[in-house]
Amino acid sequence: MPREAVTERKVIDELARIFKSPPAPEGMGDDCAVLRMGNERLLVSTDMLSASTHFHPLMSAYQKGRMAAAVNFSDVAAMGGRPFALLISLGIPDRMKMGEIRAVARGIYDCSKAYRVRIIGGDTKRTEELTISGTAIGRKKGKLLLRSSASAGQMLAMTGRLGDAAADYLGLSEGRKPGRDSRLFNPVPRVEEGSTLGTSGTVSAAIDMTDGLALSAWYLSRASGVRIEIDAEKLPVSPRLLRRTMDGRSRDDAIYHWGGDYELLFTFSSLRVLKRVAPLLRTPVTVIGKVVRGNGVYVRSGSSLRRLDERGYDAFGGNDIAAPVGSN
Amino acid sequence: MPREAVTERKVIDELARIFKSPPAPEGMGDDCAVLRMGNERLLVSTDMLSASTHFHPLMSAYQKGRMAAAVNFSDVAAMGGRPFALLISLGIPDRMKMGEIRAVARGIYDCSKAYRVRIIGGDTKRTEELTISGTAIGRKKGKLLLRSSASAGQMLAMTGRLGDAAADYLGLSEGRKPGRDSRLFNPVPRVEEGSTLGTSGTVSAAIDMTDGLALSAWYLSRASGVRIEIDAEKLPVSPRLLRRTMDGRSRDDAIYHWGGDYELLFTFSSLRVLKRVAPLLRTPVTVIGKVVRGNGVYVRSGSSLRRLDERGYDAFGGNDIAAPVGSN
Repeated sequence: MPREAVTERKVIDELARIFKSPPAPEGMGDDCAVLRMGNERLLVSTDMLSASTHFHPLMSAYQKGRMAAAVNFSDVAAMGGRPFALLISLGIPDRMKMGEIRAVARGIYDCSKAYRVRIIGGDTKRTEELTISGTAIGRKKGKLLLRSSASAGQMLAMTGRLGDAAADYLGLSEGRKPGRDSRLFNPVPRVEEGSTLGTSGTVSAAIDMTDGLALSAWYLSRASGVRIEIDAEKLPVSPRLLRRTMDGRSRDDAIYHWGGDYELLFTFSSLRVLKRVAPLLRTPVTVIGKVVRGNGVYVRSGSSLRRLDERGYDAFGGNDIAAPVGSN
Repeated sequence: MPREAVTERKVIDELARIFKSPPAPEGMGDDCAVLRMGNERLLVSTDMLSASTHFHPLMSAYQKGRMAAAVNFSDVAAMGGRPFALLISLGIPDRMKMGEIRAVARGIYDCSKAYRVRIIGGDTKRTEELTISGTAIGRKKGKLLLRSSASAGQMLAMTGRLGDAAADYLGLSEGRKPGRDSRLFNPVPRVEEGSTLGTSGTVSAAIDMTDGLALSAWYLSRASGVRIEIDAEKLPVSPRLLRRTMDGRSRDDAIYHWGGDYELLFTFSSLRVLKRVAPLLRTPVTVIGKVVRGNGVYVRSGSSLRRLDERGYDAFGGNDIAAPVGSN
């Protein structure tokens, strides 16, 4: 009998089926789970990173710790919440030295401190490879930015740029170590931005682009039952990615399907309100498309309109339809 | 320069030092972190298990999943709380088949269902070995059962028996696969017991005996600044452990230092109240000692009194003073 292929999508589908607990709790399938506590809502998200899948050999121990905290905060920000607490489970391999363990811990701590998040607990065990599992807890008042809250007639926007991580990744294969602040090794969670957009009143749905623009847009499209049209000419693509040679790889692939930038993709209803909010953010915001009736994700380029593949980074290395690394 | 030894105690001390966030949040250093939400308190605990350290090759995939959920619920129970939500990060190795992944998920689900805990989120990634990191969230009204709440004049008690897991472990080395309900492969978290004891009004401090009676008692002693005296003749030792040969190993070691039983060790003030509560529990409760002024943990046997070594299971395999697997 042929062995059943294991892809991230299949694993997630199976887990969702087995872990079913009707009625589906709010936030299930989103970046965070939602707990109602009196008048407040808590957002809870967990993310596991491991050496073989997420940590490039050139990353420093400090960067590994920092990244593990950042990806967890990013999930809370993607729901419009503000993370305030972090729990860390640290799996440490035998060969790891005390100095490296300290550096991992400092990376986690510094990233948490930068966003005023307190590390409230954790666990440490021996594992075969460095494994860091974090659980971020955040607060959210008012409307949640769910993946399912986009609706026809709204617009699509994103924070920051696309493809900085991809440019660094291509540089790596040429033996160029990314700079200290490389997005690839130092993902920046859009914590202030998510929180500000979340209270702006005009933003409806949001997601962090862990696995690339294409997959993230597809998630919004599927969860909200809408069609998303991206205007290729408006995309804020990394100048470094645009300047460099692609060595036979597709530049479009890097822009749409590679991910790693951790920017927020969101839908909103009022351009006037967004323009008032944008100057408060640390990161530029660009309107890149619109939400219309229908389904699927399309890219408009001049007068042509093409359907965007539902494809991105797959933590299981499959070529199947992938699911976001930061997913719930 | 000699390489600095990595022991679990040292790693935990370093993490605690680096993650410091004065003033120390309530629950830090206890089994769970505590979050105050309006009038309620949330207990949050995270625990990571991995194939090389926690899962015996004879364990089924279902048992591995079950155990990962159980150890997380045990931490919440040890604070007198009731777990209601679980997040699971699942690290899956390449060689693992879909059927095994399903079995792990069913183990997690069944254990959660048994305690009316809802699985609200998670993450899945590829790792070199099966790694399951859980985060349990529980509720607690009234006084928390902290490790630091024991005081002189109180009594010491425990749920269930000591050494069932040790007896199974010894059987394994003789090639005997533990039975389906073996405590070693199927740790039972004392969820109902912890919650009932937590609202009894007479229980002050509690801890789960993940790493053995000795270490758990030492934790209470150190955190509360008290001396604990255990009456050896009152210990409810597993009949199976008492009956079997020890193959040159120390039976006392297995009783005091091996752990794996996941019973609750707790202090209380009123024997009258405890006797009223005990019949409500699913598990027998035995008074095994007392709390007096001073420090350290001692064992009384007849007229002799000996100091109990501060030693137990160390997930890093060191011979150093160990720290509890389920610790925060």
